[in-house]
Amino acid sequence: MITLSSDFGSPYPAAMKGVVLQRSDARIVDVAHDFPRQNVEAAAFWLREVLPYFPPAVHCVVVDPGVGTERAALAIRAGEHALVGPDNGVLVPAARALADDFEVFEIDYDDPGSVTFHGRDVFAPAAATVHEAGVAGFETHEQFEPTEEYVDLTFPELIEREDGITGKALVVDSFGNVITNIPGRYLQAQFDTDVTVNGVWAPARRTYAEVDTGSRLVTVGSHGNVELAVNQGRGDERFSVSPGSRIRLRWT
Amino acid sequence: MITLSSDFGSPYPAAMKGVVLQRSDARIVDVAHDFPRQNVEAAAFWLREVLPYFPPAVHCVVVDPGVGTERAALAIRAGEHALVGPDNGVLVPAARALADDFEVFEIDYDDPGSVTFHGRDVFAPAAATVHEAGVAGFETHEQFEPTEEYVDLTFPELIEREDGITGKALVVDSFGNVITNIPGRYLQAQFDTDVTVNGVWAPARRTYAEVDTGSRLVTVGSHGNVELAVNQGRGDERFSVSPGSRIRLRWT
Amino acid sequence: MITLSSDFGSPYPAAMKGVVLQRSDARIVDVAHDFPRQNVEAAAFWLREVLPYFPPAVHCVVVDPGVGTERAALAIRAGEHALVGPDNGVLVPAARALADDFEVFEIDYDDPGSVTFHGRDVFAPAAATVHEAGVAGFETHEQFEPTEEYVDLTFPELIEREDGITGKALVVDSFGNVITNIPGRYLQAQFDTDVTVNGVWAPARRTYAEVDTGSRLVTVGSHGNVELAVNQGRGDERFSVSPGSRIRLRWT
Repeated sequence: MITLSSDFGSPYPAAMKGVVLQRSDARIVDVAHDFPRQNVEAAAFWLREVLPYFPPAVHCVVVDPGVGTERAALAIRAGEHALVGPDNGVLVPAARALADDFEVFEIDYDDPGSVTFHGRDVFAPAAATVHEAGVAGFETHEQFEPTEEYVDLTFPELIEREDGITGKALVVDSFGNVITNIPGRYLQAQFDTDVTVNGVWAPARRTYAEVDTGSRLVTVGSHGNVELAVNQGRGDERFSVSPGSRIRLRWT
Repeated sequence: MITLSSDFGSPYPAAMKGVVLQRSDARIVDVAHDFPRQNVEAAAFWLREVLPYFPPAVHCVVVDPGVGTERAALAIRAGEHALVGPDNGVLVPAARALADDFEVFEIDYDDPGSVTFHGRDVFAPAAATVHEAGVAGFETHEQFEPTEEYVDLTFPELIEREDGITGKALVVDSFGNVITNIPGRYLQAQFDTDVTVNGVWAPARRTYAEVDTGSRLVTVGSHGNVELAVNQGRGDERFSVSPGSRIRLRWT
Repeated sequence: MITLSSDFGSPYPAAMKGVVLQRSDARIVDVAHDFPRQNVEAAAFWLREVLPYFPPAVHCVVVDPGVGTERAALAIRAGEHALVGPDNGVLVPAARALADDFEVFEIDYDDPGSVTFHGRDVFAPAAATVHEAGVAGFETHEQFEPTEEYVDLTFPELIEREDGITGKALVVDSFGNVITNIPGRYLQAQFDTDVTVNGVWAPARRTYAEVDTGSRLVTVGSHGNVELAVNQGRGDERFSVSPGSRIRLRWT
């Protein structure tokens, strides 16, 4: 199985699928091709949330603001999974979530004819090669060189205070829910009370349905993190925050 | 074969696919993940139109404004097809279209860790279970309990008059065509004449190409219902209607 | 393998998939369903760019402003590939790219019940028939009649001048990059100089990363054509052009 993730929109991913299918009979599953454009942190977050639900697979990821520069191309072995993509940190949080330990390999590739479509010309062929060689032993292929050097990515630190906690908005999902880097356990003691978010009042509740349609709430999403939401509405607009915004929760 | 339908956008459906693929080797086909958000009636309409074109399959549907409340989870057997989703009526019109008769089962599930992602934690695993057990005999699995009680959903009644008929706009498709609940047979006698729609004049025609580019028309869509359209334009904007609007057709 | 391409958005393509799966066990791959609406030239361009990356397949294409009129339905054999779609030129550039030579067949079909969904009622069944009969010999099926008459489509001519070249904007991709019909070789001699585009100054560069974030550039895209772009921004907005616009490049 090969999964594909990118910020390419349409129809570019189809060329990647064609390239994979020229070289492999693997099942292909799209994770998403509408990740926020060139937003490595947002893609890294979603991949960490979603890829662990998959059975063993090769995950090909192309969110690559550095395309055309000297950045390396990587293949990572993480347990029975492999990840293929640019060396900008986008693969690393998912690798940590997939296995306790992981090994990183640099992909040696010929300069492709195109400078702007490494997804099709570098990463898709490499993903097919990893899949055909097998995750357990793909590094016997001459194209892969073990490396200790790669770009890491960690999500921002929290600032804990007696009366609350400060974190950051990581991503906004397609519903307008604002997903933060604050673990849900911080909010659980506050359920059924009211809190403030950057000074704006909102009830802390377990489910959307506990507030009226159109009302704000702070809850814990399926990813386990604190989420700013509006029942049947857009949390990003009502809380006036966007990816990267500081989020200060205060208990009241 | 397992089909997936939701209002989740992206990338949430990928987690559902991962969960299914952990448990089943079934072919997975996406029907749509951009159904109008939490609009049970619109999703029910589209599923009734689309699912009968499929060969026997398990159809997993998650349009679920009641997630986190006490609403039940259902599996429905409809001929050689099965439907899995929330007990809010969204499955019922499709079940009626797939078979003359259908049987409803309540899914017994452990309260999942998450309160907001039953698609991943309840419905996807249940769909895989139904698929692996087989549509003919999935109820031998202890998780399924026959029930006579479920939420029904029927589309609104028509009001017939001598000089016309009044119905309702059900959904707007991605082209801006307004699909009503008025069966096409009411319009057929009016083809090649002009009618009014909520007082707005429009020609009744068999095909878009019978009016100029940019002109309004009233026609019968591929679903067999009356449709308000604009040749190469958006009917919803030119007729000023949206899902739920009353649609009064009057012959002239 | 059957690929599907259309301007249908969602959920109409799902009905096409169901129809194919009723008749064939082929792998189905979506190329795109968000081609610019009823824009035959844009779809023809993308198909020519993308389909050659696929292994042998039947490519079913529905971008069909003439649906409901007398336009024919075609199946084209191009090497080991086949293309199925309306006779409006949308298939022809891809056929030329897939094989040196190609043969055109008219599809004989019963007038389907619907006048507006030939994708589901004519083209999807025909694609399944071609796939099941095999690309090498599908014309032995009575439904296919060889024909020499079909609508051709070629991309517009260039006007070369001593100090530059004039072409046309073909499509805008989902990033806002404007793809022209000007082959990249015209720009290569100008790399690292500045040029003007319709009088607007812009650097000619090999990669996006050679200009600042938010800055205009003229480059050569992965398709090999000249492209108007903005590093991490939208070229269509900053150059004020849209599909069909005249593009005059002038060396300075």
